[in-house]
Amino acid sequence: MFKVNENYLFLKESYLFSTIAEKVEKYKTTNPGADLIRLGIGDVTLPLPPSVIKAIHTSADEMGSRETFRGYGPEQGYSFLRDKIVEIDYLQKGIVIANDEVFISDGSKSDTGNIGDILGEENVVAITDPVYPVYLDTTIMRIGKSNKILLLECEEDNGFLPQLPKEHVDVVYLCYPNNPTGTVMTKSELKRWVDWALENNSLILFDSAYEAYIQDENVPKSIYEIENAERCAIEFRSFSKNAGFTGLRCSYTVVPMSLKTKLANGTEININKLWNRRQSTKFNGTPYIVQRAAEAIYTTEGQREVKEMVAYYMNNANIIRQGLINKGWRVFGGENSPYVWMKCPNGLDSWEFFDHLLNKCHIVGTPGVGFGSKGQGYFRLTAFNSLEKTVEAVERIISVQ
Amino acid sequence: MFKVNENYLFLKESYLFSTIAEKVEKYKTTNPGADLIRLGIGDVTLPLPPSVIKAIHTSADEMGSRETFRGYGPEQGYSFLRDKIVEIDYLQKGIVIANDEVFISDGSKSDTGNIGDILGEENVVAITDPVYPVYLDTTIMRIGKSNKILLLECEEDNGFLPQLPKEHVDVVYLCYPNNPTGTVMTKSELKRWVDWALENNSLILFDSAYEAYIQDENVPKSIYEIENAERCAIEFRSFSKNAGFTGLRCSYTVVPMSLKTKLANGTEININKLWNRRQSTKFNGTPYIVQRAAEAIYTTEGQREVKEMVAYYMNNANIIRQGLINKGWRVFGGENSPYVWMKCPNGLDSWEFFDHLLNKCHIVGTPGVGFGSKGQGYFRLTAFNSLEKTVEAVERIISVQ
Repeated sequence: MFKVNENYLFLKESYLFSTIAEKVEKYKTTNPGADLIRLGIGDVTLPLPPSVIKAIHTSADEMGSRETFRGYGPEQGYSFLRDKIVEIDYLQKGIVIANDEVFISDGSKSDTGNIGDILGEENVVAITDPVYPVYLDTTIMRIGKSNKILLLECEEDNGFLPQLPKEHVDVVYLCYPNNPTGTVMTKSELKRWVDWALENNSLILFDSAYEAYIQDENVPKSIYEIENAERCAIEFRSFSKNAGFTGLRCSYTVVPMSLKTKLANGTEININKLWNRRQSTKFNGTPYIVQRAAEAIYTTEGQREVKEMVAYYMNNANIIRQGLINKGWRVFGGENSPYVWMKCPNGLDSWEFFDHLLNKCHIVGTPGVGFGSKGQGYFRLTAFNSLEKTVEAVERIISVQ
Repeated sequence: MFKVNENYLFLKESYLFSTIAEKVEKYKTTNPGADLIRLGIGDVTLPLPPSVIKAIHTSADEMGSRETFRGYGPEQGYSFLRDKIVEIDYLQKGIVIANDEVFISDGSKSDTGNIGDILGEENVVAITDPVYPVYLDTTIMRIGKSNKILLLECEEDNGFLPQLPKEHVDVVYLCYPNNPTGTVMTKSELKRWVDWALENNSLILFDSAYEAYIQDENVPKSIYEIENAERCAIEFRSFSKNAGFTGLRCSYTVVPMSLKTKLANGTEININKLWNRRQSTKFNGTPYIVQRAAEAIYTTEGQREVKEMVAYYMNNANIIRQGLINKGWRVFGGENSPYVWMKCPNGLDSWEFFDHLLNKCHIVGTPGVGFGSKGQGYFRLTAFNSLEKTVEAVERIISVQ
């Protein structure tokens, strides 16, 4: 009788967003006329920018001609894209990253999940609560529901920022701007974590999928803005939220050459080399046409288009934020992030407020408790719907008692 | 000091094809005039078929318009593609597979590597020798170089087909038509494996990436042609080799609902559900435009184009096969497979023959020993180059003493 990985049994049966989808389906069946507005899932709604579409057409034609056809590409991604990332996302901001420290992939969900492949099962892993469920679920898949998983509580009275762990921790997942709370770490706050990691020889897995939404100059877009972070951190970046690639699938992960640790026998080992071996063996690269599409974001035209998309969503975030504040509710995030996080009013818990918004306002949001027990009593609204729907949603919220 | 997965240390430093690439680079530097013909790596050279290119253009335009834009798709793949696979690849061949038993992904390399995520580390895993290196490397990454990995020797005197294991085995990887030997299993041969798996409650991981090349009616294209295989086998299929998707990235994996095993506590568990949880948590789906491209293969036009591509490569395979036979060499495969496998002449070992072909004929092939120790003394040539280059390569081989 072949055996399965029984760690999977510790996972919750269903993914948060499936539960929401079921509730919404049920509501629609019993209320067929309801005009629902979705401010729930973090999926974009604006179409892909023109320069991206143009790049897909051009590269598709290349793939249709014998002379320019490309088969297997480098598993790590094409140099034309890695070079642009190095130049525009890092060098122009004063951060030195080499081409071979950048790994192109099909999504940050894959990379933040797969990174565990190269880590030892004996590591103590710290994860914030509330959190993007993928970090926790993939860690449980790998090491089970053991006492090696430590939850870092993020509460209103600490501004939803985790405290440095008092216990020994080997690996910590940090996501800033944060999903779901929309909160950010300033440079000095992130520096405390880098210093802690360097002192404890710990690894920071830094998810900066939402960096494009940062408005405040004091908030780092990359962890490598902090001195010596290249010796303790892997950074995950995505084209999903800045350029609308949620359905096109492209992201990248930076694994600096300076990031090292020691084997059980004391020998030093290079993490970049391990990730390279993982990717070359278990992945065959991101589609050529998708990498050309991502490259187009780095043209002058592409940069302008991406800035416009982000500005559009940030305007929505501001409308939601101001509307909820005017309503007298306690609101967080939404200033450097497409996510607005709020305290549920009148002592409602997360799912009660979900039902309230669905029934009274026909608005779908995300219950905070879905991201962890410390999210109980909170709620997440996203800025990714259209301006018109966002304005309408806020009007509905304001008008309902 | 955070820990790494030390199983990686058991892996060979470099991937076979990187070593070949280095040798070729060196040769080109010292012989700048040499007109090299590559019959080494299994990458296609014909461009993507017109109906595929058309589908990419159409769906790219959808992604560029607000009304038709698609963000996150289902992690398991869109129904439009899963339905076509079920209908044309299975139902029309008399095999009943349901839509939710099919998982679309970015490549069989990913799926055959990632499938280990849901398997227990205590399984005894059998792998043929020689073998496509990904099965072995990803198993080592997961369970180390333990006595739980059993090599099934495939030698000339058993027609390069493995014997049923005498020891207890929980999981076996089988790839037919085989990479690298180009050999196939008939229905009765594959039935012996299915019967063995059912009797031993073992799992067969069946890679049929090369099924499109099968000419012989007695050779099964799917393991599900064998009765009850849905209770013991997962099947991996790819669009890479039939439709030229090596640079576009799309494949699928069938995990039947009838495939079950027992937990340590005796409870029955459904493997489809586990793989679904793995994919929903660690993967965000294949790009929409790539799934539309794959769908186009199933149109009348697409089917015709794919058949033409396969016929083109099979003609090459036949030219290589006949040429080597005329030369008096011992040749295998190439009849239901794009790979021709041969015994190195004059007692040369695999790398000696590699050097011989490179130096005397300016042809790059793949040393059999790169696929495992039982490949020593053998060599692989692939049918994926152009007709002109293939003819020229065979002429060079014939003319050299």
